Amino acid sequence: MEISEILSKLTLEEKARLCTGADAWHTACPQSISVPQVTVSDGPHGLRRETGVPGESASATCFPSGSALGASWDPNLLEELGEALGEECRAQGVDVLLGPAVNIKRSPLCGRNFEYYAEDPCLAGTLAAAYIRGVQKQGVGTSLKHFAANNKETGRLTTDTAVDARTLRELYLPAFETAVKEAQPWTVMAAYNRLNGTYCAENKRLLTDLLRGEWGFQGLVMSDWGAVSDRDRGIAAGLDLEMPGGCAIGPQKIIRAVQNGTLSEEALDRCVTRVLELAQKAAAHKKPAPAKTPEALYAQHHALARKIAEHCMVLLKNDGTLPLRKTGSLAVIGEFAKTPRCQGGGSSHIHPTALDVPLEEIRKAAPQLTVSYSEGYTLTDDRPDEVRIAAAVQTAAAADAAVIFAGLPDAYESEGFDRSHMRIPESHNALIQAVAHAQKNTVVVLSNGSPVEMPWTEQVSAILESYLCGQATGSAQAAILFGSANPCGKLAETFPRKLQDNPSYLNFPITSPDFVAYRESVFVGYRYYDTKQVPVCFPFGHGLSYTTFSYLSIETDRAELTDRETLTVRVTLKNTGSRAGRETVQLYVHDMESSIPRPEKELRAFRSVELQPGEEATVSFPLSKRAFAYYDAAAQDWTVEDGVFQILAGGSSAETPLCASVTVHPAEPRPHIFTRHTLTAEAWDKPATCAVLKEFLTKAGCDNLHVQADWMRDMPLRNLFMFGAVYTQEELDQLVETLNRTTTFC
Amino acid sequence: MEISEILSKLTLEEKARLCTGADAWHTACPQSISVPQVTVSDGPHGLRRETGVPGESASATCFPSGSALGASWDPNLLEELGEALGEECRAQGVDVLLGPAVNIKRSPLCGRNFEYYAEDPCLAGTLAAAYIRGVQKQGVGTSLKHFAANNKETGRLTTDTAVDARTLRELYLPAFETAVKEAQPWTVMAAYNRLNGTYCAENKRLLTDLLRGEWGFQGLVMSDWGAVSDRDRGIAAGLDLEMPGGCAIGPQKIIRAVQNGTLSEEALDRCVTRVLELAQKAAAHKKPAPAKTPEALYAQHHALARKIAEHCMVLLKNDGTLPLRKTGSLAVIGEFAKTPRCQGGGSSHIHPTALDVPLEEIRKAAPQLTVSYSEGYTLTDDRPDEVRIAAAVQTAAAADAAVIFAGLPDAYESEGFDRSHMRIPESHNALIQAVAHAQKNTVVVLSNGSPVEMPWTEQVSAILESYLCGQATGSAQAAILFGSANPCGKLAETFPRKLQDNPSYLNFPITSPDFVAYRESVFVGYRYYDTKQVPVCFPFGHGLSYTTFSYLSIETDRAELTDRETLTVRVTLKNTGSRAGRETVQLYVHDMESSIPRPEKELRAFRSVELQPGEEATVSFPLSKRAFAYYDAAAQDWTVEDGVFQILAGGSSAETPLCASVTVHPAEPRPHIFTRHTLTAEAWDKPATCAVLKEFLTKAGCDNLHVQADWMRDMPLRNLFMFGAVYTQEELDQLVETLNRTTTFC
Repeated sequence: MEISEILSKLTLEEKARLCTGADAWHTACPQSISVPQVTVSDGPHGLRRETGVPGESASATCFPSGSALGASWDPNLLEELGEALGEECRAQGVDVLLGPAVNIKRSPLCGRNFEYYAEDPCLAGTLAAAYIRGVQKQGVGTSLKHFAANNKETGRLTTDTAVDARTLRELYLPAFETAVKEAQPWTVMAAYNRLNGTYCAENKRLLTDLLRGEWGFQGLVMSDWGAVSDRDRGIAAGLDLEMPGGCAIGPQKIIRAVQNGTLSEEALDRCVTRVLELAQKAAAHKKPAPAKTPEALYAQHHALARKIAEHCMVLLKNDGTLPLRKTGSLAVIGEFAKTPRCQGGGSSHIHPTALDVPLEEIRKAAPQLTVSYSEGYTLTDDRPDEVRIAAAVQTAAAADAAVIFAGLPDAYESEGFDRSHMRIPESHNALIQAVAHAQKNTVVVLSNGSPVEMPWTEQVSAILESYLCGQATGSAQAAILFGSANPCGKLAETFPRKLQDNPSYLNFPITSPDFVAYRESVFVGYRYYDTKQVPVCFPFGHGLSYTTFSYLSIETDRAELTDRETLTVRVTLKNTGSRAGRETVQLYVHDMESSIPRPEKELRAFRSVELQPGEEATVSFPLSKRAFAYYDAAAQDWTVEDGVFQILAGGSSAETPLCASVTVHPAEPRPHIFTRHTLTAEAWDKPATCAVLKEFLTKAGCDNLHVQADWMRDMPLRNLFMFGAVYTQEELDQLVETLNRTTTFC
Repeated sequence: MEISEILSKLTLEEKARLCTGADAWHTACPQSISVPQVTVSDGPHGLRRETGVPGESASATCFPSGSALGASWDPNLLEELGEALGEECRAQGVDVLLGPAVNIKRSPLCGRNFEYYAEDPCLAGTLAAAYIRGVQKQGVGTSLKHFAANNKETGRLTTDTAVDARTLRELYLPAFETAVKEAQPWTVMAAYNRLNGTYCAENKRLLTDLLRGEWGFQGLVMSDWGAVSDRDRGIAAGLDLEMPGGCAIGPQKIIRAVQNGTLSEEALDRCVTRVLELAQKAAAHKKPAPAKTPEALYAQHHALARKIAEHCMVLLKNDGTLPLRKTGSLAVIGEFAKTPRCQGGGSSHIHPTALDVPLEEIRKAAPQLTVSYSEGYTLTDDRPDEVRIAAAVQTAAAADAAVIFAGLPDAYESEGFDRSHMRIPESHNALIQAVAHAQKNTVVVLSNGSPVEMPWTEQVSAILESYLCGQATGSAQAAILFGSANPCGKLAETFPRKLQDNPSYLNFPITSPDFVAYRESVFVGYRYYDTKQVPVCFPFGHGLSYTTFSYLSIETDRAELTDRETLTVRVTLKNTGSRAGRETVQLYVHDMESSIPRPEKELRAFRSVELQPGEEATVSFPLSKRAFAYYDAAAQDWTVEDGVFQILAGGSSAETPLCASVTVHPAEPRPHIFTRHTLTAEAWDKPATCAVLKEFLTKAGCDNLHVQADWMRDMPLRNLFMFGAVYTQEELDQLVETLNRTTTFC
């Protein structure tokens, strides 16, 4: 049946009920007409399909979580992941997978950071688009979330987030924008919080004007689970579907609002239409469950989970201790080696199909190696345990090298609350310091969803950041430790030295969450650390390899362009080491001079490249207007200021050995507008307007122009009387008008 | 004649003309009635009475400028200065001296910082009140300026300054508030800039509601010179007097606005009344010129200028090289030793009555000493001059010790423009580094109006910050160098290590000054560095002495109080060194736990104490509500949160050896208000409301409360349906109402 026909047959009550879920995981079906129900299920890095038994979900592959995936910098990998996730959805009858999550990591404290990709929207948006493409190839929908500016957990359902227009456009919206424009997710999920005073789930500016109007989104908008405050306002704003279902208040409010005329039935019809469209789309795209047996599917996906994990882990430091030798002796330290932490808590928590245990994988990978083990700490006690530490030190000292598994226990980070500090347990820190003191070849392997302070970086030989890397964490760690996999992850977020260094430190309330002002504006992550020259522990984009890469050359296809043209940048690099490896070429743009405060540099493109020893590759990047622009809040548009921009290329935000310069001109220069508040200097500095001003001053009886010009420059036109000029208001107005007629462009 | 009578006789045109100056330095006189004219003249740290010849002013004593005076931390000294300034005004027939200037040093780059006292409003306000008392004792008025939030020079006449209410109340207004409440200046000067969209000279909220309504200001408000944009709006806002005079547009606008009814004649009458009141007050208080001869007056004031300068200079570092020996040999290096920089540029630039030259004063102070001199750099070239540096190194190496005079040349800082960096000329830096390399006893004497970067702090033996210390700079420097004066100045501003560390760094535009957002909010100066734990070069409050002080004890007269009561804190300290000295006891308050981000600590009181060797003193400080409060923008009032506060006492913001704790309770606790958006946790956590909630949930069919309570805590009341509760909107509203009836206080 055509949707318009269905719509014409539905009662007001049926329409209202269709705009709320039937229960926690299904859309509703009207009583009178059969409409397919849509099944949705939690993601994003694995399928959490509830079984009906409280707290239980069907088993599924637990892939690396968002912060690990972000460190891959590889959209191809994300697309492959998406396809696998889509396959599991098909196997379990799920129509829409609730992901990807692209919120920007404003503070390392946000409890849900582990689900998010990056502190940079270019990276987050590109990865999200690839994820969506992958899942949707399988005939399964996605839900791009959490829209928008949901960057903390404490009080997330009610906090009012104050973000200025420029910061939204440059930092918090572009990842959504890219994903929508490039990949058209079937659905978008409205976030819990208020944005500048209005709940996201009732925010017409966000859900309709921006998302559909500017970006061309074609799908359905649903609420985050419990994000609805006033359902009728949500309908007016373009929130098509309230989730979860189960409460009569939402539909009641809609019905009353239509009946008393405060909500138009057209607005309701638009939402109902989108719910029906989603149902039809899900039915139309539905593919049969994969032909493989579940065993074959999950075995294949476990291998994929391992491949992805190997691709995501970040080698932060290495003095040459890694890769480890497969002979001699190795001390494995830390309870995480036996009980790995591989995923985060909350709605994304998967019931995994398998679990690779690091200690076992190490033993499997190096059968010739004598592997000893000491737990070092317990999972429950944060205080240093002197007895366990002493035993670990003894174990470590007796071996050729030691690997310590450490990081954040479950209780430290999860959806639903924020961390109050950035430290790992004291028991872990004390263990690392004691072992490093006794064993000079000490490697630390970290499991955590978000940056931690590392007071021992100087004391250890190597640090591998494995994030929360999914059910194949253990085998991937072993592969990297022994060098059968070559690490290639790059940090998608800065690791600051201490929490206080983070730009949101003064504005990340964890006790009174009613209101949070994003006062650091666009200066988030490396945009802040670079610009403020704050030394960091590990910079954005950083990640080592067992091979080496040389950045050979950068070239642009022109030296000068208008902001309507596209610049092509070609970067050539070479694997100068002795083994195959993968490098992420990062392209940053630096505005040499700006009238407003801008970040030192901003990531505008990147490419992950696999290179054999000695192999060279040239990668090319198109850069168009947005790569040079900032968002001009007053003009409500993107603006490029005439001038020189540097294009920086390299393997980390802190190491950009290549640099090219281009001059960009705005295609439509803005006319210079004079008012009586315009500083006199602006008239002096152009010959045409200077002549007008001089004529006026002479006529007004102002002499000694040479003497006074300097002091006059900083005065607005309205104050020319202070230099002896005599004129009426009308004559002043006339001057301004003449200057505007005479004026050239800015 | 009574003012009301004069008023009744004035025509509309005469009234309008009275609200604008007669010329640059005098108020107007109506044609029909004789009214005394008021003569005003630039200050603030000396009298700049223009002679009529362009660029010339009558000679007067050039006292230390604002940044030096701020470092005195001594209101008694400021009062003495004020009396002397008032005397010079009497001698030259000036009725109102344009000062003091109390703008907060938001950025070290502000070109006019040298005229301002401090980065802290408690310090700036206390000093300003003392200055005003001193001047006004002489029957001469003052003008408290620049009201308000005028903290940069570039584009100062048009910039719109965006500052939130809390930041205004806690940082940018209290210095004005204190000065008005404690000392009632005859006039207040409205600043150039716009504040949150409205020109200060048209800002009713500022000029009338706050200044007169809340603070009880009784005097006249005049504009800064050229600050008027729309004169009629200024009248409505309470801007009594436009300065300078000389333009017919202002009066015309007033006349037209009254005639067409957009401005009430009552508003105009209020302004005219205040102009007339000022004229009568000036006439009534006028004292005859001092009986002394000008020579005697200026000789006496030169001695005072020296005393004040000795009191203000800050000994930043001393490894024991200072005081210098008066025998042996000394190399004096740097052109500033012959051509001292002792004042800043712009409207405060004095034609001094005398000038003490450091090199001559050093020779005079130590006749037994062999003093050699080498210029090291020129005043005009910033590039290191290898020949001059080599000569200086040779001179320095041949002597027992070297003193280098360095700092900021005139061209680097002035009213009217901002610095673009925080460095002294490269010629100075290179000289200091070369000399310090050759001579281990190297002392640097700095002359500058605002903090500079000092890349050589570790390499030199001692650093004396002499700021712009007025016409007796040279003799005061000599007195401190040789120890006949014991330094006692304390920094009234933090010296950051580099410009990028400053909190306003990302929001201090120096190219496009149309708009500036104070995004760092209350975190200005030490409030930022302390809270963000940013290491600094020299902290707020820091300053060394040739003697030592021990902080012996702190006691409070109670351990617990309400915010209606006053706490008395007594601090005992002792001069533990071998010579007399002056110490500034600083009292900071630290809120142990706050629901909003607050500075680590804030200065709430201070006292300058002179102590003989071995002498002890106990100083006592009253602390009332404001010492513990923050400004709650939503409630538009000062709020004290129930809890523990630490009172820290010491001789620097970085060294507070004494600490006492008190518990403060709000006298009027705020009732806890529930809405449907209130988190469930807030009901769970109090027995009475917990019972209400449980009853509701049970009735609504929600079981398993124990299992769900944790997850429920972070949900707003409106989302109880997610836990199986079934209820109508009316029942939910009823729950909220019952909780509010049941509620206790926050």
